[in-house]
Amino acid sequence: MTTTSSKSQTTTSSEPQTTSSESRTGSEPHVYAVVMAGGQGTRFWPLSRGLKPKQLLPLGGGDESLLRATVRRVADLVPPERVLIVTGTGLRDAVLAELPELPPENVLAEPTGRNTAPCVGWAAATVARRDPAGVLAVLAADHFIRDEAEYLAVVRRAVHVAAGGELVTVGIPPTRPETGYGYLELGDALSEGVFRARRFVEKPDRTRAEEFLIAGNFLWNSGMFFFRADVVLAAIERFLPQLAHGLAEYDVAAKRGEETAAVARSYASLPSISIDTGVMERAEQVAVVPGDFGWSDVGSWTTAYELASKDDAGNAVPHDAVTVDCERNYVFAPHGKVVALVGVTDLVVVDTADALLVMPRERAQDVRAVVDALRARGSLDKL
Amino acid sequence: MTTTSSKSQTTTSSEPQTTSSESRTGSEPHVYAVVMAGGQGTRFWPLSRGLKPKQLLPLGGGDESLLRATVRRVADLVPPERVLIVTGTGLRDAVLAELPELPPENVLAEPTGRNTAPCVGWAAATVARRDPAGVLAVLAADHFIRDEAEYLAVVRRAVHVAAGGELVTVGIPPTRPETGYGYLELGDALSEGVFRARRFVEKPDRTRAEEFLIAGNFLWNSGMFFFRADVVLAAIERFLPQLAHGLAEYDVAAKRGEETAAVARSYASLPSISIDTGVMERAEQVAVVPGDFGWSDVGSWTTAYELASKDDAGNAVPHDAVTVDCERNYVFAPHGKVVALVGVTDLVVVDTADALLVMPRERAQDVRAVVDALRARGSLDKL
Repeated sequence: MTTTSSKSQTTTSSEPQTTSSESRTGSEPHVYAVVMAGGQGTRFWPLSRGLKPKQLLPLGGGDESLLRATVRRVADLVPPERVLIVTGTGLRDAVLAELPELPPENVLAEPTGRNTAPCVGWAAATVARRDPAGVLAVLAADHFIRDEAEYLAVVRRAVHVAAGGELVTVGIPPTRPETGYGYLELGDALSEGVFRARRFVEKPDRTRAEEFLIAGNFLWNSGMFFFRADVVLAAIERFLPQLAHGLAEYDVAAKRGEETAAVARSYASLPSISIDTGVMERAEQVAVVPGDFGWSDVGSWTTAYELASKDDAGNAVPHDAVTVDCERNYVFAPHGKVVALVGVTDLVVVDTADALLVMPRERAQDVRAVVDALRARGSLDKL
Repeated sequence: MTTTSSKSQTTTSSEPQTTSSESRTGSEPHVYAVVMAGGQGTRFWPLSRGLKPKQLLPLGGGDESLLRATVRRVADLVPPERVLIVTGTGLRDAVLAELPELPPENVLAEPTGRNTAPCVGWAAATVARRDPAGVLAVLAADHFIRDEAEYLAVVRRAVHVAAGGELVTVGIPPTRPETGYGYLELGDALSEGVFRARRFVEKPDRTRAEEFLIAGNFLWNSGMFFFRADVVLAAIERFLPQLAHGLAEYDVAAKRGEETAAVARSYASLPSISIDTGVMERAEQVAVVPGDFGWSDVGSWTTAYELASKDDAGNAVPHDAVTVDCERNYVFAPHGKVVALVGVTDLVVVDTADALLVMPRERAQDVRAVVDALRARGSLDKL
């Protein structure tokens, strides 16, 4: 974080001028879920495809897609009209089909991916037009949460802190020396379950990751953020003026009912940078709410296996599968297809209408090699 | 074999009275292929099903079904109008679709399976109405032959011997101490490549099978038989009079154009016995023509793997499959489906529209356990 002061963040009690047409009961802020649902997820080939990425798949152990679960988990706080989904134009229809209760205009369709800062900025500008003091809960569409009650308690705490003007991030207590995530170092406690962030740490090597795990005051950066629309927009104006300029153009266009055209014209020229790097790491004050609720970013078939419900032999297979002398296999197959496994262990088997993958679970990372091979031979219709 | 004499067999030079309407050039007999295509083949689940049994599948390494290959191999000797297929009524349409060049009346559809003696008897009666001295080549629809030229030479030899009035069987020189087949012990040579059968031997135990392999004069009973229609009908009359009586009724009905109704009425009451046990083993004189032409009865997925063409790593997979660190796998998947294998060896993977099987090749015999499990739970639509 920089040491420059930031009025919009430090003045936590100031209520900005609002043009909101919504009524407000007492000091309870309106929460807007901003669900980032733009990813592709080649690690889940052949299930994840251009038009069926990871977040639209039921990888959390039941029949519910990860995206729907994301929206459902905060439904007590966030009604459908305050759920915004940011995704690619190619996924707009699939997202609306998955969440038919959403007003169609709540799907913000990016003509091209520009990392998360433009995505969050556009959502914040959209919320601010309605409700500048509305609190954004920025959530990833492809995460799994085991303890949903604890998760909701953490969300309420983060919302409360964000309503006071803080930029808030949720940190996950690490359970292994993971080298694939960024970390947050905790500073002083601000209140019960809320800390000042001392610093953001890039993905560490194995040795440092082990040190972090032992130290106890390093948390995984979950990518969940909470802030008021006006607060994050002020931070964007300060740290990412080019993005702020673009967002201002969208505000002007929106008043004329021409926002979609403006986005189509200029979104690709917005700076491609993450909200972490572009805003959170540069802000001198960020609050951290630790969240110990059984989080997973569902990063590979291995994770999907771990999350899935299993039989006594550790097989995560369709309920009507036939298994003979089998242990710890993961099978994803369409409904109605009878799956029979004989004498195999620790396999991942994924069967779709036009692709079939078989591999040991420990080779899950090598799905990338398959995707690369298909791309190299030009089989783009299989990707 | 019994020691009773049998006129129809020993009088090899006698030509029976014939009512044949076909012309005969010189002494060259007309050959009728009688292809037994009634089996189910649960060992090939999930590919083999009620309406798609083994013989209709391309298990010989190419795209050709085993049934079509059976007919093609003898096409030089047997034109389509002399090919008879005996199968179940449920498979009649599928057989005609596979062999559209056949006259539809050449498919003899059994209302119920009664083993091979009624099947051969009905075919012999059908041939005898046209051509009593016609030679039947009784062939299984689900065998694989590697050396087709040698096979055809053996067939011509067997036809020649059968035309002389012998009951002829083709014996396969064993390549392993197989306990799953019956054997023939060879006796004296009758002519070049033709022997008298000393006796039929039931499926031996391992020790005896090893003795047979070493002895050198024991051949596998392939289930291919050659005999004149009149000769085998005379043998049936002698050894299986109840069957002969039923066949005589069909002859009467056929003259009135009512054979199908007669078969539907009484086929189930014919004696259920194999042509081996019911006729060949009881006849005192049987000729054996050894056939060393790379025969396989395609008995399991293991055999199918052995017959299939393979890549350098021994994988028998679709030509557009992606394999990463894989050896000796067998994959059967529909056309157009991309198959990706990563880090697996010696697996059998069979993917169909509504079923998926994964197992090590050495467990191929346990497919039966899967079929039993599905039957036990009442999933008959998957069988």
